[in-house]
Amino acid sequence: MANNAYAQLRGLHRQAGTLGSLGSLLGWDQETYMPHGGAAFRSEQQGMIAAMAHEKRTSKQVGDLIAECEGDKALLSDPAVAANIREMRRDYDLATKLPGELVAEIARTTSLAQEAWKLAREKDDFGAFSPWLEKVLGLMRTKAGLYGGGGELYDALLDEYEPGMTGAEIGGIFTPLQGRLSGFVAELVGSKHQPVDVLAGMDVPNERQHAFGLEVLRGIGFDLGTGRLDTTTHPFCSGIGPGDTRLTTRYGTTSCLEPLSSTMHEAGHGLYEQGLPKGEHFGEPLGDAVSLGVHESQSRMWENFVGRSRVFWGWALPVAKRHFGPVFDGATVEGVYGAVNRVQRSFIRVEADEATYNLHVMLRFGLERDLVSGALAVKDLPGEWDKRFKVLFGLEVPDNRRGCLQDVHWSCGLIGYFPTYTLGNLYAGQFWEQIHKDLPGLEGEIARGEFSSLLGWLRGKVHAHGRRYRAGELCRLVTGRPLTPEPFMRYLEGKLRPMYKI
Amino acid sequence: MANNAYAQLRGLHRQAGTLGSLGSLLGWDQETYMPHGGAAFRSEQQGMIAAMAHEKRTSKQVGDLIAECEGDKALLSDPAVAANIREMRRDYDLATKLPGELVAEIARTTSLAQEAWKLAREKDDFGAFSPWLEKVLGLMRTKAGLYGGGGELYDALLDEYEPGMTGAEIGGIFTPLQGRLSGFVAELVGSKHQPVDVLAGMDVPNERQHAFGLEVLRGIGFDLGTGRLDTTTHPFCSGIGPGDTRLTTRYGTTSCLEPLSSTMHEAGHGLYEQGLPKGEHFGEPLGDAVSLGVHESQSRMWENFVGRSRVFWGWALPVAKRHFGPVFDGATVEGVYGAVNRVQRSFIRVEADEATYNLHVMLRFGLERDLVSGALAVKDLPGEWDKRFKVLFGLEVPDNRRGCLQDVHWSCGLIGYFPTYTLGNLYAGQFWEQIHKDLPGLEGEIARGEFSSLLGWLRGKVHAHGRRYRAGELCRLVTGRPLTPEPFMRYLEGKLRPMYKI
Repeated sequence: MANNAYAQLRGLHRQAGTLGSLGSLLGWDQETYMPHGGAAFRSEQQGMIAAMAHEKRTSKQVGDLIAECEGDKALLSDPAVAANIREMRRDYDLATKLPGELVAEIARTTSLAQEAWKLAREKDDFGAFSPWLEKVLGLMRTKAGLYGGGGELYDALLDEYEPGMTGAEIGGIFTPLQGRLSGFVAELVGSKHQPVDVLAGMDVPNERQHAFGLEVLRGIGFDLGTGRLDTTTHPFCSGIGPGDTRLTTRYGTTSCLEPLSSTMHEAGHGLYEQGLPKGEHFGEPLGDAVSLGVHESQSRMWENFVGRSRVFWGWALPVAKRHFGPVFDGATVEGVYGAVNRVQRSFIRVEADEATYNLHVMLRFGLERDLVSGALAVKDLPGEWDKRFKVLFGLEVPDNRRGCLQDVHWSCGLIGYFPTYTLGNLYAGQFWEQIHKDLPGLEGEIARGEFSSLLGWLRGKVHAHGRRYRAGELCRLVTGRPLTPEPFMRYLEGKLRPMYKI
Repeated sequence: MANNAYAQLRGLHRQAGTLGSLGSLLGWDQETYMPHGGAAFRSEQQGMIAAMAHEKRTSKQVGDLIAECEGDKALLSDPAVAANIREMRRDYDLATKLPGELVAEIARTTSLAQEAWKLAREKDDFGAFSPWLEKVLGLMRTKAGLYGGGGELYDALLDEYEPGMTGAEIGGIFTPLQGRLSGFVAELVGSKHQPVDVLAGMDVPNERQHAFGLEVLRGIGFDLGTGRLDTTTHPFCSGIGPGDTRLTTRYGTTSCLEPLSSTMHEAGHGLYEQGLPKGEHFGEPLGDAVSLGVHESQSRMWENFVGRSRVFWGWALPVAKRHFGPVFDGATVEGVYGAVNRVQRSFIRVEADEATYNLHVMLRFGLERDLVSGALAVKDLPGEWDKRFKVLFGLEVPDNRRGCLQDVHWSCGLIGYFPTYTLGNLYAGQFWEQIHKDLPGLEGEIARGEFSSLLGWLRGKVHAHGRRYRAGELCRLVTGRPLTPEPFMRYLEGKLRPMYKI
């Protein structure tokens, strides 16, 4: 009986998901609390778990059960169930293309490569990292080859993060957008009206920033009973499992409000994780995020569309003043609003403003695509990075720490991941316009620190569906149109043109 | 070829150990950082890992390989290898008596029971905990029945923690010791010369206590590059795997030096874990601790024999002064030495002094033995606890938080565990006498903050062997005699009689 097959299939997915959750916890722990000496063994643990999860996901039993369900018309008449089975098939067909030993090898290698990257970045030593990048890149090329698909190798990697999207398609969006953004940035930085950095020199101890961040988290609806906030070099969000979603942020950065941006960014991911129907569907496609682009739309929306808006600071500034004390006495909403929206060409992606951010992403997209195709050799990466950076930003990269060693992604095997950051901005822009149509009172609510109708909209329109719809389909369903960069550009120009008087 | 079988067997043990290490990390995380809302899923994770580790440990392949090795005389001619195989056989025979579903059920239930215990203790609500204790006790009785062994059920549980020891044997040691200790405690508390609590009212912020604790850890040789120190309600040590040993402690207790005692106690366990030859033998008996009694001998030695000695404070007091600031200005070695050795009848085991501590253990030993035999019903536990406490300590237990709800152990399924605490004191006493014979300059070294010859002795005589020798055999090997309470009593009386002038 197929209903029974479906129940079994769901059970097996939950088991594989539970194994995956152990990998997530191992990864979270490695970045937060694991002693350095545990790195070698951690790689062994990750390799074992990855192999076991892969074995569960690719078992003949899973394949047989999927086939059985696919033959049951009554079962498939429920569109949610049909979508669940469609995505299970996709995952199964992809996973069975990879031998378990490769999956384990990737887990072990990236666990070690990440440690090597940390040290190399600290010491600004690309030479110490390049053999690891070679290894990771080799494994990714092998994986992409096994995935196949007929297009360029890069597409197969991208497809893991943004199902159905290709490098060419992204190139088609990015190339004109890059031109528009570069022009716009030139206008902005050339304007005589530059917002003043009223936050410069304001020093706020980490504990106060942490307390402020926690209050904002509570305010926007992140549940700290099923989540937490820690500190890491590179902030991230890990949805470990039902009832357990962890954010990290970092303090001690150049501006006292940057930690809040990191925290709100990760909270956007975390709210999505908390909003997925994991209680019922953990480990199944219906309990999983639709794509990284959509995931990133949530983080960028909370970080930027909300967190860098004037109305948000109407609510958040008094909260900040309560936590930060006298140093913030003179701060005004207008002053903070200007300061957190300053546009500057700079070296570090995660500290970049909304206008230049996508240029950082486009740089990485081009480089990683060339690394995968073989057009760019690892040894030439620093030089090529610096050269392209000069063209895009007009700046000389002073060292690799502020150049090609700044991001953790490639050491983790996350190749094909970067473009989803810009896709996230574009999805966020398009959602944001729709949200304002659907919730005309939203600006006033945010100014009063009320975020529940915004969160409710996201929960209902995006989070609740899991992978029921593909990203493009979801975008059309929610906004009535396919994804375009127009709403994002309207949002960006609508905010920055008046501010810079251009 | 049996050598190949032995290599395979070791590989399988390392895999099972690696799965076990995931359970340890899950447990550590549950007590330190897991959000409360993750408890239900955590129990699912623990259940899955326990079942998988059990499956690995009990596979027919393991059984066949052990049998093959047992038949290879050349292989067994190496006594370390022979011991490794002997203990693999023991573990295998025990593990194969338990069905996987029971092992998973125990892991799931104790993970939840621990959360229930936390809440029940907070609210002083035994009624909320008792159904969980019933469940855990039922599972433990089932397990003990399956282990068999012919003696009382309790023996089968005890045997997991202290291989070869029986309830009757422990009763034979404890009963006369209880008499001696009770009499000695009566003399001590009746003396007119009571050391003054010079620490009373000295309030030291947690961060300073933490920094002090870390400096002492470094001083005694605990490697913070392969370990760490966190805060939990109930301090513990978790040897997660090679290069990863984690301690916890707690602050905000009644006396400002109690946190150090907790920290040094757990560090004693941690030094043992760091001293085990896990690089080569992780997951094998040769890389594992010999028994909980011997494990506890290490923690009690560092906590008490070292940490409550006059010479230790000769070194540690200036360190404490540096961290604690003006509040400690007037403290003297004699004053602190007296204060940390005050003997008082009190309610909480983990805060008890060295003389009364073992009475707390004996109370629990008697009660849990009766719970397992059925002579005591769970519902009668609070009343019986209070009654026996009154007999032993002459005090009325004011509430269950300070009575039968104070310890985490039973919620974790750790039944048969408590007596190993007192065995640990006795082993420590006997080792300590031997150490002083072998290292005549030790007192002077400790006074100068030099701990390397003490740690070297423990490493060579105890840690390096793993489970090569059983506990009793190790004791005889190291001290030339079987375990007796005499050295411990000599140590205790030698310290406290002069102090109390009795």
